[in-house]
Amino acid sequence: MSECNNINNDKKTVRVNGREYRWPVQPTVVVCFDGCDPEYIDAASKAGLIPNIDSMRSSGFASKALACMPTFTNPNNVSIVCGVPPNVHGVSGNFYFDRETGKDVMMVDSTPVRAPTLLAAFSRAGAKVVAITAKDKLRKALGKDLDGIAFSAEKANEATQAENGISNVEALVGRHAPDQYSADLSLFVLDAGIKLLETHRPDISYLSLSDYVQHKHAPDDPAALEFMVAVDQRLGKMLALGARLGIVADHGMSDMADAEGNPRIVYLADRLSAAFGADKCRVICPITDPFVRHHGALGGFVRIHLLTPDIDIHEVLAFVRAIPGVALALPRDEVCLKFDVADDREGDIAVIATKGVALGAGKADHDLSQLSGTRLRSHGGLTEQVVPFITSIPVKANPTHRLRNFDIFCAVLNEAL
Amino acid sequence: MSECNNINNDKKTVRVNGREYRWPVQPTVVVCFDGCDPEYIDAASKAGLIPNIDSMRSSGFASKALACMPTFTNPNNVSIVCGVPPNVHGVSGNFYFDRETGKDVMMVDSTPVRAPTLLAAFSRAGAKVVAITAKDKLRKALGKDLDGIAFSAEKANEATQAENGISNVEALVGRHAPDQYSADLSLFVLDAGIKLLETHRPDISYLSLSDYVQHKHAPDDPAALEFMVAVDQRLGKMLALGARLGIVADHGMSDMADAEGNPRIVYLADRLSAAFGADKCRVICPITDPFVRHHGALGGFVRIHLLTPDIDIHEVLAFVRAIPGVALALPRDEVCLKFDVADDREGDIAVIATKGVALGAGKADHDLSQLSGTRLRSHGGLTEQVVPFITSIPVKANPTHRLRNFDIFCAVLNEAL
Repeated sequence: MSECNNINNDKKTVRVNGREYRWPVQPTVVVCFDGCDPEYIDAASKAGLIPNIDSMRSSGFASKALACMPTFTNPNNVSIVCGVPPNVHGVSGNFYFDRETGKDVMMVDSTPVRAPTLLAAFSRAGAKVVAITAKDKLRKALGKDLDGIAFSAEKANEATQAENGISNVEALVGRHAPDQYSADLSLFVLDAGIKLLETHRPDISYLSLSDYVQHKHAPDDPAALEFMVAVDQRLGKMLALGARLGIVADHGMSDMADAEGNPRIVYLADRLSAAFGADKCRVICPITDPFVRHHGALGGFVRIHLLTPDIDIHEVLAFVRAIPGVALALPRDEVCLKFDVADDREGDIAVIATKGVALGAGKADHDLSQLSGTRLRSHGGLTEQVVPFITSIPVKANPTHRLRNFDIFCAVLNEAL
Repeated sequence: MSECNNINNDKKTVRVNGREYRWPVQPTVVVCFDGCDPEYIDAASKAGLIPNIDSMRSSGFASKALACMPTFTNPNNVSIVCGVPPNVHGVSGNFYFDRETGKDVMMVDSTPVRAPTLLAAFSRAGAKVVAITAKDKLRKALGKDLDGIAFSAEKANEATQAENGISNVEALVGRHAPDQYSADLSLFVLDAGIKLLETHRPDISYLSLSDYVQHKHAPDDPAALEFMVAVDQRLGKMLALGARLGIVADHGMSDMADAEGNPRIVYLADRLSAAFGADKCRVICPITDPFVRHHGALGGFVRIHLLTPDIDIHEVLAFVRAIPGVALALPRDEVCLKFDVADDREGDIAVIATKGVALGAGKADHDLSQLSGTRLRSHGGLTEQVVPFITSIPVKANPTHRLRNFDIFCAVLNEAL
């Protein structure tokens, strides 16, 4: 684990998961800009549409950082609020296959999170802390042990003082909770954050958006640019309210369709069944959750579990590696070593696609009609590992430190990496 | 950069490149077992041929570790003696193409090494330090600023007190300097290390072998097993002489031939010339050095430099990514972020092969006749990144620390990671 240095010992600090964080000196807001590939920033900046982000980039700090593997929402959001990679906190995807029990385990609450979050640590040290997520699936994980406010835009109308530390969120924001498949789901998160900055003045806010827009629209699509404008305006409001800002993403986003617009998919479970027999292997697509309409549960990373002792892992590895569209197929010990993931939450083999290719289980497992005619855009692999890392304040960075997205709280609080 | 903790402050320590090392409490020997894929250890151990290594594994510490990218000899040897990855010390291969001057720069002396080595730091703090390499190409880099003994097996007969801190090496070892293409090149290094342990009693020895055997022989080949026996016997002698041992490798080794035994090669320069025109791109194979007979300058990692401003990097990236046998093609900023390599020593694009495939420049650039009928075995890519990491003493390891081959001195000196 990396350590933050240059701590000013005159100040109060909080130590979480081996890292030390300075007490916020002004309201500090970290935005997890879900699915914000650097190309979205580049396209909007070139079009002159994001003056607030541009201003942060020129007068604060801007770089690219590495997201955690697999490049999915849950492992990366949890990494950001814990300040450490998935092998420490254990969240490896939206769900995983428990080798001990043979059961699928959804990671939609705080149970699989086995490290403390810095949000909880700061709240228990007396800071006013707010966590707002787009989808409710993340709220319980990010709000684990949090003595503060934690709610989702998706279920804003259900927030209660007892469960969320706040009620009447719709009245606060001034509109109804948005549809879970909408650009407004993210904007509602930002608007709620702004309102709380005005009224509650939290020391630390964590605002986690949705990648609905990025799954549907390429960076230069008018709808994507319009969304960037809307986000940028809200970031400007937070800066005007005196907030210190950090922006990072959980993962990038890649087009996974061919010239005709058809999705480029390797159905790995079907291939394995044909080669080794049915029910020998289980293919887990850890992007799967109850909300798959915008990506059909297809991404650039899947796990293979070998279900019977008669199947030879070396044969399966060789077979999978020979499939066009597969970049890497790694046994469990190697994927753990390379990507800091948790051994007990991995399969026997991790498979990572080449750029522009999606990996699926069986053809029957994925409902492509839900894509409703748009090109498949998704994430999960190495290709979507590079994300923006932008703060409103200058940060003293060590040029040989490999910048990770989960360094963002260290950067905005400590002003040094 | 990772930091070593658990330093006993009662002891003298040496701090190099941000890491602190305890003064050796017994003669400490680190062996860089060139090209020792974990499969060589596994095969020899299963055959019961390496009792000393097996004993270290059971009573000391044994794990797998990650080598540095690209998985070549020079970047990894320099990383091991510096305790840090290539972005700190700058050595990116056996040679590189200088973008500023347009010239190829060989990395066979100490000029490209821009970080201090811990060998030099310990020697200047008063320790008796010895560095012995197989090939002389590495000796100058590893012996940089070293106030001690540094020579190569290859040029053992030329060692002088003035240049190497020792003379009459052949007399010391009791035989002539071996052929540079021989298993004995490595054994001579070990035998010289043993003789110096007996006579000179160095505090720290670094013994860097050659991968001649591994390039020619698969792990279960009799010649490979015989070599493992010879190495293991010499390690046993060192242990009997009271040495504390650490064993690590610079890279693994992969078979890159098809079922018929023909090498599987993507000639990238030829492909690029056909697609974009001659002289638009320069393909650099950083495995190339004056000693290529055993691998034909073919490995799993090459760099592409774009030579004219009219060539579009996005088109080249898309073209290269679509070639079967290519796992990843990454622009410079992404390869630096992902693999801790030095920006000014990278090309415009780094290309990494899939397992079992070699990347070359043009067909005319590689003399396959030198392979003399053996299957192509080589390294350079992600596939050869996992290496053994074994010490003769127990090491207190943090289970969430990503073990790197350049942690080996920290492990043997500090007994903790």
